[in-house]
Amino acid sequence: MGEIFLPEVMGTAMLTLLGCGVVANAILPKTKGNNGGWLLINFGWGLAVFAGVYVAYKSGAHLNPAVTFGIMASGAENYGGEAALAINVGNTIAYLAAEMIGAFIGAVLCWAAYKKHFDEDADGATKLAVFSTGPELRTPVWNVVTEVIGTFVLVFVILYFGSTPSGLGPLAVALLVVGIGASLGGPTGYAINPARDLGPRIAHALLPIPGKGSNDWGYSWIPVVGPILGGLIAGLLFMGVA
Amino acid sequence: MGEIFLPEVMGTAMLTLLGCGVVANAILPKTKGNNGGWLLINFGWGLAVFAGVYVAYKSGAHLNPAVTFGIMASGAENYGGEAALAINVGNTIAYLAAEMIGAFIGAVLCWAAYKKHFDEDADGATKLAVFSTGPELRTPVWNVVTEVIGTFVLVFVILYFGSTPSGLGPLAVALLVVGIGASLGGPTGYAINPARDLGPRIAHALLPIPGKGSNDWGYSWIPVVGPILGGLIAGLLFMGVA
Amino acid sequence: MGEIFLPEVMGTAMLTLLGCGVVANAILPKTKGNNGGWLLINFGWGLAVFAGVYVAYKSGAHLNPAVTFGIMASGAENYGGEAALAINVGNTIAYLAAEMIGAFIGAVLCWAAYKKHFDEDADGATKLAVFSTGPELRTPVWNVVTEVIGTFVLVFVILYFGSTPSGLGPLAVALLVVGIGASLGGPTGYAINPARDLGPRIAHALLPIPGKGSNDWGYSWIPVVGPILGGLIAGLLFMGVA
Amino acid sequence: MGEIFLPEVMGTAMLTLLGCGVVANAILPKTKGNNGGWLLINFGWGLAVFAGVYVAYKSGAHLNPAVTFGIMASGAENYGGEAALAINVGNTIAYLAAEMIGAFIGAVLCWAAYKKHFDEDADGATKLAVFSTGPELRTPVWNVVTEVIGTFVLVFVILYFGSTPSGLGPLAVALLVVGIGASLGGPTGYAINPARDLGPRIAHALLPIPGKGSNDWGYSWIPVVGPILGGLIAGLLFMGVA
Repeated sequence: MGEIFLPEVMGTAMLTLLGCGVVANAILPKTKGNNGGWLLINFGWGLAVFAGVYVAYKSGAHLNPAVTFGIMASGAENYGGEAALAINVGNTIAYLAAEMIGAFIGAVLCWAAYKKHFDEDADGATKLAVFSTGPELRTPVWNVVTEVIGTFVLVFVILYFGSTPSGLGPLAVALLVVGIGASLGGPTGYAINPARDLGPRIAHALLPIPGKGSNDWGYSWIPVVGPILGGLIAGLLFMGVA
Repeated sequence: MGEIFLPEVMGTAMLTLLGCGVVANAILPKTKGNNGGWLLINFGWGLAVFAGVYVAYKSGAHLNPAVTFGIMASGAENYGGEAALAINVGNTIAYLAAEMIGAFIGAVLCWAAYKKHFDEDADGATKLAVFSTGPELRTPVWNVVTEVIGTFVLVFVILYFGSTPSGLGPLAVALLVVGIGASLGGPTGYAINPARDLGPRIAHALLPIPGKGSNDWGYSWIPVVGPILGGLIAGLLFMGVA
Repeated sequence: MGEIFLPEVMGTAMLTLLGCGVVANAILPKTKGNNGGWLLINFGWGLAVFAGVYVAYKSGAHLNPAVTFGIMASGAENYGGEAALAINVGNTIAYLAAEMIGAFIGAVLCWAAYKKHFDEDADGATKLAVFSTGPELRTPVWNVVTEVIGTFVLVFVILYFGSTPSGLGPLAVALLVVGIGASLGGPTGYAINPARDLGPRIAHALLPIPGKGSNDWGYSWIPVVGPILGGLIAGLLFMGVA
Repeated sequence: MGEIFLPEVMGTAMLTLLGCGVVANAILPKTKGNNGGWLLINFGWGLAVFAGVYVAYKSGAHLNPAVTFGIMASGAENYGGEAALAINVGNTIAYLAAEMIGAFIGAVLCWAAYKKHFDEDADGATKLAVFSTGPELRTPVWNVVTEVIGTFVLVFVILYFGSTPSGLGPLAVALLVVGIGASLGGPTGYAINPARDLGPRIAHALLPIPGKGSNDWGYSWIPVVGPILGGLIAGLLFMGVA
């Protein structure tokens, strides 16, 4: 468990620091990347994963409860090659706790990096959007469907990484995330990771942000339930077909 | 044949789920990537191939009848290295059937992910464009020429992949597709794959999409004939010169 | 010489087909990539190199007289690893002739792919710009300086590729070209390759393009002289310091 | 020391030539990349690092005093694998001097490549922005915080590169820089490198640029102090946890 906790905290913090950061750059007032477009956001999140995987390589770099559950469901006890760690109850709890704590810390660091831009005038929904996802069309069932499909793609393809030779290392998952964001992020903003959404949402609730609006707790269960379902389906299907 | 069918179905479904997905994100109303630009679409399709190749690696990841025919024409019975499968009549039928079925399934999943955005008001041509390609200037001969050239580049370069050392794995074909889209997608939207165009077109015909317009069957033979011709020319030229 | 000619013709044709193609997509009327932006053009040209290098791998994939001269100047007779070919007078002539012929063929194929868009109304300078480069501010001395610096970067870094371990293969030079275009393409449009500019310019002169304007022969010596100078300086400096 | 000086000068010159170049292309008048957007700038700087690392591979390719200090703080005497050089006082001075001189030279070359565009009418702040960074909201403490966080990410992740297998070579750090720019460049323009900011600023002060404005020396200490702090924190934390 000790081998898991610290790397996963640091890797997930890296993930949300850079991931929330690119959204801050694209939507907060007076930034250099203001209005930088969807592809900028996609590359920013993809490379956030890239950096996070290096830092958490030692623990298999889950960085995401949906990945943890997907690996569990796939029965792939040896996921992660040399870096493999047994998926048991203790380790699973260590992963989940570390992912949540790391995601929270990264969001706080992102807030610090963009402090003066958060202090500028902007509506509350924009400030929340730096931290957490929200749907363009609020219809819980279909929002869940979108998150299930996006996370299914993430976890299912990750499970195949081990069986295809390449020298891409952490770049493979980074590019996969760029692609999921470009292709499936349109309706809900691709949380595809419960910790990535919930950790920063808690940070948003606690941080002293002027003009802060709602934390939108009413939506917050969707980017938790959808990704976990998607990850489990991916793991089970992978076990069946691969 | 069994080794071919399931991986090709899954890989081609991944291809059209993510590929149609990025178009949905870029052109359907109220998405986060709305109006995201041509490069976004190019990266989305390229990374759709990236994900699809991982999932279908075991069967050589054709994902495309033009690739299947091109390999056949090149006589490269050992295409795909360790993953190589003999190109005979039975296997060819398995590839083609799997590619069509997979392309259809992926398009249905894309529709599910963007369900509420398809329900919004938009003209029928826009909704069809998520599924299938269409030309900017409708002139069958030159539309075929464009699709032949684009597919020729795809298959010809893929056939060279085996003879150039690199550790890119599935990224090589993904980047090639990004490049073909950027450079040769301008006139017809680069089907360069009969299954990618016809499978989703059938899905469009069957799905309950409000305000749905024509399926444009009149154009549908071009993204089938053009790519098959392009793939065959690539295979024959490769056999002659490589 | 026979080992050089055909691969270099095909590789350079691939280069200008895709390279001119992305410009056609970005600036000709009624294309899907119309007004797609500078980064689209940079990725298009970079991936054009990517495809060209695979096809010409057997001959060392110069695809560019500036590279041929730079290798000659560096004394790097073994450039290209296993694919190495001696740099002597006969081989040099074979490289240069093949590069010019290939660049011409690729431009003709690009014209065919975009035939109906070339037939649309647009001013002559726009149509020429698909084929060949032109400066934003016409001042021969400084235009040469810009082309010298851009080509110097290209050839100098390529010469270092052999001494840095990576599994990128043809992607390394592709990314280098993306970077040179982004950073040094602003004033003159980064010919950085005499064949890439002169071959398509001749194609422009010969092809039946409605509303065709000047071939701008007055500028045509700059993207020849600048890149050759830049390549030679890179080769000589590399020999001195590496 | 001799093994360090020349490669680091050349690599850092490559870095600022291409890095300042992409900003020139994006913001100076009448360039082809004018108004090309934040992602263009991010890729330009990332690929500037890519080219610089190849040229300076022999000396470990620090290219950045924050990296030099970070390695020192981490006690990673063997950073850089086969290319490793002991981190002692003499070598450290050689690195720092070479980085500053190289950064200055690269900025001068960038000015030469864009000479006629610098001669055009534009306000002084725009011309300075090609060379050096400046904040969108000038608040020294938070500007330092932003630079500390950005540089911390750079150096911390670089220190992990050695322990994660991949064949990306210099691409890994290039992509990391693309990501940091996208995600953390919004407030201050991501100097994350004292030499990259100070060297070009001195060049700006000395070069004969018409309509030149202030060198903004009042801000110049921030992109020096922030990155050095960030690098030291990264090195110390890495030593503690890795």
